[in-house]
Amino acid sequence: MTGSGALTLLREIEDVGRDPRRGGYSRHVFDDAERTLRDWFVERALRLGLAVSPDRNGNLWAWWGEPGPDAFVTGSHLDSVPGGGAHDGPLGVVSALAAVEQLQATGFTPTKPFAIVVFAEEEGSRFGIACLGSRLLSGAISADRAAGLTDAQGRSFGDVSRDAALPEFGPDADALARIGVFVELHVEQGKGLIDLDAPVAVGSTILEHGRWRIDVRGRGNHAGTTAIGDRRDPMLPAAAAVLAARQAAARHLGSRATIGRLEPVPGGTNVIASRVSAWLDVRADSEQDTRDIVAEVAAAVADAAADEGCESAVVEESYSGEVRFDPQLRDRIAATLGGVPTLPTGAGHDAGVLAAHVPTAMLFVRNPSGVSHAPDEGADDAAIEAGVGALVRTIEELA
Amino acid sequence: MTGSGALTLLREIEDVGRDPRRGGYSRHVFDDAERTLRDWFVERALRLGLAVSPDRNGNLWAWWGEPGPDAFVTGSHLDSVPGGGAHDGPLGVVSALAAVEQLQATGFTPTKPFAIVVFAEEEGSRFGIACLGSRLLSGAISADRAAGLTDAQGRSFGDVSRDAALPEFGPDADALARIGVFVELHVEQGKGLIDLDAPVAVGSTILEHGRWRIDVRGRGNHAGTTAIGDRRDPMLPAAAAVLAARQAAARHLGSRATIGRLEPVPGGTNVIASRVSAWLDVRADSEQDTRDIVAEVAAAVADAAADEGCESAVVEESYSGEVRFDPQLRDRIAATLGGVPTLPTGAGHDAGVLAAHVPTAMLFVRNPSGVSHAPDEGADDAAIEAGVGALVRTIEELA
Repeated sequence: MTGSGALTLLREIEDVGRDPRRGGYSRHVFDDAERTLRDWFVERALRLGLAVSPDRNGNLWAWWGEPGPDAFVTGSHLDSVPGGGAHDGPLGVVSALAAVEQLQATGFTPTKPFAIVVFAEEEGSRFGIACLGSRLLSGAISADRAAGLTDAQGRSFGDVSRDAALPEFGPDADALARIGVFVELHVEQGKGLIDLDAPVAVGSTILEHGRWRIDVRGRGNHAGTTAIGDRRDPMLPAAAAVLAARQAAARHLGSRATIGRLEPVPGGTNVIASRVSAWLDVRADSEQDTRDIVAEVAAAVADAAADEGCESAVVEESYSGEVRFDPQLRDRIAATLGGVPTLPTGAGHDAGVLAAHVPTAMLFVRNPSGVSHAPDEGADDAAIEAGVGALVRTIEELA
Repeated sequence: MTGSGALTLLREIEDVGRDPRRGGYSRHVFDDAERTLRDWFVERALRLGLAVSPDRNGNLWAWWGEPGPDAFVTGSHLDSVPGGGAHDGPLGVVSALAAVEQLQATGFTPTKPFAIVVFAEEEGSRFGIACLGSRLLSGAISADRAAGLTDAQGRSFGDVSRDAALPEFGPDADALARIGVFVELHVEQGKGLIDLDAPVAVGSTILEHGRWRIDVRGRGNHAGTTAIGDRRDPMLPAAAAVLAARQAAARHLGSRATIGRLEPVPGGTNVIASRVSAWLDVRADSEQDTRDIVAEVAAAVADAAADEGCESAVVEESYSGEVRFDPQLRDRIAATLGGVPTLPTGAGHDAGVLAAHVPTAMLFVRNPSGVSHAPDEGADDAAIEAGVGALVRTIEELA
């Protein structure tokens, strides 16, 4: 009845959505694996006596007692990046279930409305926009723009949502208004807690973060018959973008710039690509740094494209300013937990989206690998137990 | 009853395997589109009174009269690159059917055994080895090595062949021994016939050609939380490979080096890739040039990998020396056709594989776009009619 409930719950889902090719897990919104996890969550929440319903955006809400205003809400997400770790998302959901189980066993009843939430498409791995469920709920993205997002198979979010019986997605003022405070527990995605030798921390800030799509158009042709001088190969500007992103990030201290997704079309071995899309992920301490990095990469791509007779464009897909979690809430939770450290993060979260609207906090749980968005990512058992304990005490204090 | 038969046949298949995402056609060995084309070929050959059977490697043989030794064989392939043109492959098959129809209408009967052949997996788009059907038939690749080739879904050629009722794939001495001469008609994949202002040419040589897979391993991690100094990002050496391939080809006159397929794993926007595979396609006038280009690219990748804390490897997937088509056969056909020009090509063909074993020739048909392995590739109607006419006269002369 300590954290062992969370470990048991994690074992129950450890074979859902394994990715034999990439390693780790691929659980993308509304795919078979993510639906299996949703069904599993509903079943586990019902077993605790919670009442579960989806909202108009596909986020799942499990209420302990009556839904109502000023609710204490905790939770996270169940989807993953392609080939991600077992705990990015599920740890927050599982810890919430385990915390409720522990509190029920001790006879605790919340004095406020209380819900566990599972947000949809937090990683943006299917439709390209991270935190899509919380962005839709809070109005940070319009229903129109979301409707037109497409997945790798060319299916639109609008079509997929209709198939999932969610035709009315969009801002959900009622759902937002019910949240009094939101606390998201998450496996740490860096080495902060290793360096601090602590199992749990409270979140302080999230770096600025944006995603840009770089499109380069050239001329598809035969790799064997097309002389070098006749080529307009979009792979060359795309390669320049990869190198420029690294150079730009190195020039702006503390920033990060990454191209981890790059798709030549048609992508044949004996074919000069006709076009390439690459996605640039930038995080920095300030908007100026972020904009400078994007401008430097765009300039490098444009120069290389001009040299090669290609056309290039850089399109902003998402942008989020720095998030500062509510300082009073942060300090109150840290004190409740006996003075645990506070930590900034470079990773985005639904908590970061909601922080613009309601007092929001995060609990980070130690990740011995220090890596994230990769199969090795995960919290150790002792830290998982400490995390559930911290969430229990936070609920006792705030709910 | 001129070339119009070929145009009609091409229209019959113009909607099979269209690729809405890439444009053009994606018809890969044993996928739905390629199977549809095979069934269509069988039906059209039967209508001409030909007897059709697959060989042990999935190549289709349509015999006019009894199969036998010293046969005149013509044909090509029905599969495509991803997002390829309508005529790369099918034009040779369609022109053969149309030529037989014309010859039958004039009362011509071949004096030798005569077959139309459709080779399997000419492009290597599914299993990575071009001309797989003719390589297996002629023993240029072993059954063991072919069995282990895998497609993008991780299915092996061995498994797929068993499912296609071809469990005994491998060298086929009987099939090879029956071929007396092989003539492949193909849409031209460059600008030679535009420059010469001629509809048809006879092939002279095929450049040296090899494919190498470049694997770079780094450490997958979170794009937001991993400081630049802590990264081992395999995209950087992969980008260096793209640029090095261009520089190396530019240093070796007349050569070509291309990376048109590059696959980061896991390929998420907010993920530093854990590994990247890229495929290097090299063509050159000499083996020395080819080997030098590969060595230069491999050195650039190794240097960049060392800088980034990554590991790299370059693996040869296929290599074919220069092909010189039988000069006597080439000159005899050119003379039969009234002195049409001869042309070298940088593109590989089943005719190039068979040229090591039997007298082999190619007919190239003008492609007004000058591009290849792209949706715009294709012969104009007048050139298609001229191509069928040239094939008819070649058959009258040789069969």
